[in-house]
Amino acid sequence: MRGAILHGSRDVRFEERETPKIIKPTDAIIRISATCVCGSDLWPYRGIQPIAQPTPMGHEYCGIVEDIGSAVTTIKPGQFVIGSFFADGTLVATPDVPTGDVVPSLLALSDVMGTGWFAADAANVKPGMTVVIVGDGAVGLLGVLSAKQIGAERIIAMSRHQSRQKLAREFGATDIVTERGDEGVQRIKELTNGIGADSVLECVGTQQSMMQAIQSTRRGGYVGYVGVPHGVELNGEQLFFAHVHLHGGPAPVRRFLPKLIDLVWKGKINPGKVFDLTLPLDQVAEGYRAMDERRAIKTLLRP
Amino acid sequence: MRGAILHGSRDVRFEERETPKIIKPTDAIIRISATCVCGSDLWPYRGIQPIAQPTPMGHEYCGIVEDIGSAVTTIKPGQFVIGSFFADGTLVATPDVPTGDVVPSLLALSDVMGTGWFAADAANVKPGMTVVIVGDGAVGLLGVLSAKQIGAERIIAMSRHQSRQKLAREFGATDIVTERGDEGVQRIKELTNGIGADSVLECVGTQQSMMQAIQSTRRGGYVGYVGVPHGVELNGEQLFFAHVHLHGGPAPVRRFLPKLIDLVWKGKINPGKVFDLTLPLDQVAEGYRAMDERRAIKTLLRP
Repeated sequence: MRGAILHGSRDVRFEERETPKIIKPTDAIIRISATCVCGSDLWPYRGIQPIAQPTPMGHEYCGIVEDIGSAVTTIKPGQFVIGSFFADGTLVATPDVPTGDVVPSLLALSDVMGTGWFAADAANVKPGMTVVIVGDGAVGLLGVLSAKQIGAERIIAMSRHQSRQKLAREFGATDIVTERGDEGVQRIKELTNGIGADSVLECVGTQQSMMQAIQSTRRGGYVGYVGVPHGVELNGEQLFFAHVHLHGGPAPVRRFLPKLIDLVWKGKINPGKVFDLTLPLDQVAEGYRAMDERRAIKTLLRP
Repeated sequence: MRGAILHGSRDVRFEERETPKIIKPTDAIIRISATCVCGSDLWPYRGIQPIAQPTPMGHEYCGIVEDIGSAVTTIKPGQFVIGSFFADGTLVATPDVPTGDVVPSLLALSDVMGTGWFAADAANVKPGMTVVIVGDGAVGLLGVLSAKQIGAERIIAMSRHQSRQKLAREFGATDIVTERGDEGVQRIKELTNGIGADSVLECVGTQQSMMQAIQSTRRGGYVGYVGVPHGVELNGEQLFFAHVHLHGGPAPVRRFLPKLIDLVWKGKINPGKVFDLTLPLDQVAEGYRAMDERRAIKTLLRP
């Protein structure tokens, strides 16, 4: 088989790898139908999070089960499965082998859609609420979709990129705020009668985005943060007087998979729209470059 | 009238003050039945939080309404009221003028009981849960009482002072942990099959106590923090991977007053037990000293 290996800063190579074998009875071998580049992997790609040795990349995938170990009971060869990136028992089968046009939306469930959904869940989004989304990457945009699906009344996307604003509106955003930092917070306050939002989804992971999220939230409101924090320090006193609920972490994507598969299968959501670049797998390096340079929201790779 | 004025580090004086007058139509004048020293005020008392000028101290009180402004509608002269320290509309009348023995418990509702209750509320305490309380001051001890009242099954108080451990047990603690910091966390893990507690109440406000609280919580669990943070910095990445819910801030005591008055009135809780030193008001300086030196959990002052 072949795989994408990160050798150093901005150096992804598509290389021959050992043929996979069932080693433990809980193993499974999946023939990939589609995979993609994760925004989180841009941190090591950019060298901000150093790697010690050549490192296989990629953890979002879907495909057909080829073989399973003797202890595997929930899936069987021939089924189409979606893999999630967190905790054991990651593979969930779809009701049937899907047609090709549904594959991107199912692939999105492998990470970004589940993470956007978790951000909305952690931020306590409920019908009728006013929700702000900080970050217009794939996760942020799917946070918009999640808030809409849950029934938020007002959905304010913070984005300064036209193509992403367009997709945010398509996913259900009612307002767009292009300002960032203190100016962004000021604008959110203006849009919410000076109060702030009920729920804010933080989908970036920088000091600025985290403070922007906390300060855009009303007192007693909720911040759900899913951007992996890099260099973020929260001042205890500031957080105390902001009086917000804060919850985040690696998204328990597996927990949301059955519900989200059902929504995609019934055509109620189409999260695959975040893939605005599709490449053959051997062009994975260009897939990373395009996301690094923000030319693409998210790259889908086909074998 | 007279009042307690902080002039500088560890310098509280009981001094003559101007006779109060109704100035705004929303004002009320209360003849104090009992008041007390707040643990939060030990920060300025110790000079850790500097003051710019002589500052009147004290914000926990109960007593009889003497006079009200023309816009006041919810209370009237002759009623016994409890004052809470946060937000407008602070005064709530009790069903009747209480007998003297109930006054300490009603006074406790003015701040510490409401704050302990908020800590339990913010930490999502529910019947059957395992709860840890970090801090054995009045608020921490009343956090124990709150967790018990809500129906927690296992209540672990972190305390190394015998008299406070005794009161914690009286309030419902099932276990006492005397270790602090990493050792304290280790002990909590041992007591919870390596998992951590469902809910942790942070009632101190230092870096050590905050990290102790976060690390004692199971993944997906809740930290309610009410100790005013001093010099606390939370590392974003550490918090992210701890995967806890975090909520805290100045307690909305007013919100809990009707429920808590009812519980005291019916004799279901007796939070006044935290007052282990009662002094005449003119000995307020000694009241502060005793709390500063941890000779007293909380000082009640009588006019």
